[in-house]
Amino acid sequence: MSEMAQQIEQAAGSTALLIVDMMNALDFDGADRLKPAALAAARATLRLRDEADAQGVPVVYINDNYGYWHSEQSRIVDHVEQADGRELVELLRPRDTDYFIIKPQFSGFYATNLPVLLPKLGASRIVLTGLAADICVLFTAADAHMREYDLWVPGDTVASADSQRTRWALDIMAQSMKAETRTTEELQLKDWLAQAD
Amino acid sequence: MSEMAQQIEQAAGSTALLIVDMMNALDFDGADRLKPAALAAARATLRLRDEADAQGVPVVYINDNYGYWHSEQSRIVDHVEQADGRELVELLRPRDTDYFIIKPQFSGFYATNLPVLLPKLGASRIVLTGLAADICVLFTAADAHMREYDLWVPGDTVASADSQRTRWALDIMAQSMKAETRTTEELQLKDWLAQAD
Amino acid sequence: MSEMAQQIEQAAGSTALLIVDMMNALDFDGADRLKPAALAAARATLRLRDEADAQGVPVVYINDNYGYWHSEQSRIVDHVEQADGRELVELLRPRDTDYFIIKPQFSGFYATNLPVLLPKLGASRIVLTGLAADICVLFTAADAHMREYDLWVPGDTVASADSQRTRWALDIMAQSMKAETRTTEELQLKDWLAQAD
Amino acid sequence: MSEMAQQIEQAAGSTALLIVDMMNALDFDGADRLKPAALAAARATLRLRDEADAQGVPVVYINDNYGYWHSEQSRIVDHVEQADGRELVELLRPRDTDYFIIKPQFSGFYATNLPVLLPKLGASRIVLTGLAADICVLFTAADAHMREYDLWVPGDTVASADSQRTRWALDIMAQSMKAETRTTEELQLKDWLAQAD
Repeated sequence: MSEMAQQIEQAAGSTALLIVDMMNALDFDGADRLKPAALAAARATLRLRDEADAQGVPVVYINDNYGYWHSEQSRIVDHVEQADGRELVELLRPRDTDYFIIKPQFSGFYATNLPVLLPKLGASRIVLTGLAADICVLFTAADAHMREYDLWVPGDTVASADSQRTRWALDIMAQSMKAETRTTEELQLKDWLAQAD
Repeated sequence: MSEMAQQIEQAAGSTALLIVDMMNALDFDGADRLKPAALAAARATLRLRDEADAQGVPVVYINDNYGYWHSEQSRIVDHVEQADGRELVELLRPRDTDYFIIKPQFSGFYATNLPVLLPKLGASRIVLTGLAADICVLFTAADAHMREYDLWVPGDTVASADSQRTRWALDIMAQSMKAETRTTEELQLKDWLAQAD
Repeated sequence: MSEMAQQIEQAAGSTALLIVDMMNALDFDGADRLKPAALAAARATLRLRDEADAQGVPVVYINDNYGYWHSEQSRIVDHVEQADGRELVELLRPRDTDYFIIKPQFSGFYATNLPVLLPKLGASRIVLTGLAADICVLFTAADAHMREYDLWVPGDTVASADSQRTRWALDIMAQSMKAETRTTEELQLKDWLAQAD
Repeated sequence: MSEMAQQIEQAAGSTALLIVDMMNALDFDGADRLKPAALAAARATLRLRDEADAQGVPVVYINDNYGYWHSEQSRIVDHVEQADGRELVELLRPRDTDYFIIKPQFSGFYATNLPVLLPKLGASRIVLTGLAADICVLFTAADAHMREYDLWVPGDTVASADSQRTRWALDIMAQSMKAETRTTEELQLKDWLAQAD
């Protein structure tokens, strides 16, 4: 049994922290507008990841493959680092104890290993962070809501190329997916964990 | 072979008109605010359905089951008619030649027969209409975009309980899902059909 | 709330009885060879359905649509009755309290409402019956096993056009999917229910 | 764009060679009985992979993660090599031009990237090889058949712990999934390619 498999058996369960597309090459149209907001969101996500470590909440990266269909995390992260994602990698490089799921489309649930991993982790609640707020985060939130996960999308841990559209996406996640959207300054992870039914 | 099965074999293919949750009981919180906009959207959808008939575009209803897990369309429509959806049913009652897909959650693609029906219809392009713009229409559009369908969400054929949120949802569908969102007054179905690659 | 929705809330949970393609038109090549075995399996399934009623186990029909994409159970059953499935319908006609799921392909889990219904029923164990043992029952069993349902496929409640192939399919379900395959004469439903962890 | 992404754009399309669980740690009960048959199947698969290279048919490995949820192919292959899979790795180690899909359950289609990769490759026909014939190969074949892929499961490129059960599984794939099951000695890849409609 791998150490990670043992780790799963010992996981406290109930909540998982998802980090979407933070290993980001920032090589698309509008990436220059996204970058400052992305770095701010990454810093907030790093603080939240520390809090997750302290609370025993498992951390799951979910990331685009950038055309590398080898299922090789290190290669994807290298590509991102050599493109315009160096600062994001420096802030949030996945660790050996972090789960890493490759997604080929926008939602973290579509055609990925996630629907098998989450039940193994015993997770019924999700803290969702990452890029971009109005695309991959929004699509992942929609799929999570349909699968009846409780959602917290901390407003300061997501970003998009347009701050107005980030607000709209957060509003829709709050209204249509019953997501909590307070920032990590307004709500502590331990307090959200304590709200579980 | 059923007549509908024969009809599928003769379908021109490429485009399908989807009508989401228009058989709507309007029995949820905020339904009173949705109703006038829903009726206006239903009227625009009816005109579009006529145009679809004229162009040989198949019509697919996708609808909530309202807790009736019998897979019995007529029972769902009866329930809606006896609740507050009578005017919607009068406007847009499904006909015998219309396909009808029951969805148990928000997206038309999640846990429904749709992923099998659309390839049988030869559809690679979708005209998406219905309720609510910021929930079931938005979720269905996201899933359609991930499956690489071209999308037209005519702005006047969708509605939600809040016209501002309808605009935000349409903006996100335009930006994040590459959807055409012009109204049926601004764009004719035959002209959209002509745009296919 | 529909009566069926109330019924779901009161369901005891843990186990569901699935009846696959027993509303069967028997209109395919080899159906004449299947028919006697199908009727015997239907009789065993009827006794099991009585036992399920007595034990409060919900009954879920899962059935082909025969090219009727209207989501209208009564129309599918009528078609079957007017084809060569009259005796099957007489034996096992779905009742108003039975759930009915339409499947467009072989597995009961693929592109159907089932993945949403089973969690609502609180089911983690499945008793699987129906036709044909080496096709739709086998495919459904495989999907159930991957989703970590405990399985009992009573050997006398399934049938195929070739009794040898029925035995092979049962052996594979026992070996590869950890299914219990004893007949309803060898094992009582109440005893299988008592085995739950 | 990665070289692999360019490679996809140039792919001839229509057929893909799938290699299931050949990076196999052989560490389960009965693995000792599987091993000789597995090595024979691996040798036949290697010859077929050469033929696939010659014909421009893309090669897709689909493999268990052995509890390593890092999405890191090299780590999985290392684990297999250090367990009892060294000879399999020596025969069939994935190359940089091979696609590699991680599956967390039995079917190559369930909760994996495969449903997105195959359309990108333009594949509508699948040559399916690997381990074990009566579990992961069988489940993957069932899912491929439901998605309307043409199937060739060369009888000498699959194996299980019991040669009788291998024959049963092949018979069911032939009868229930319309799979071609002739061996690579009885049928050449180029001749199967020529059979496409």
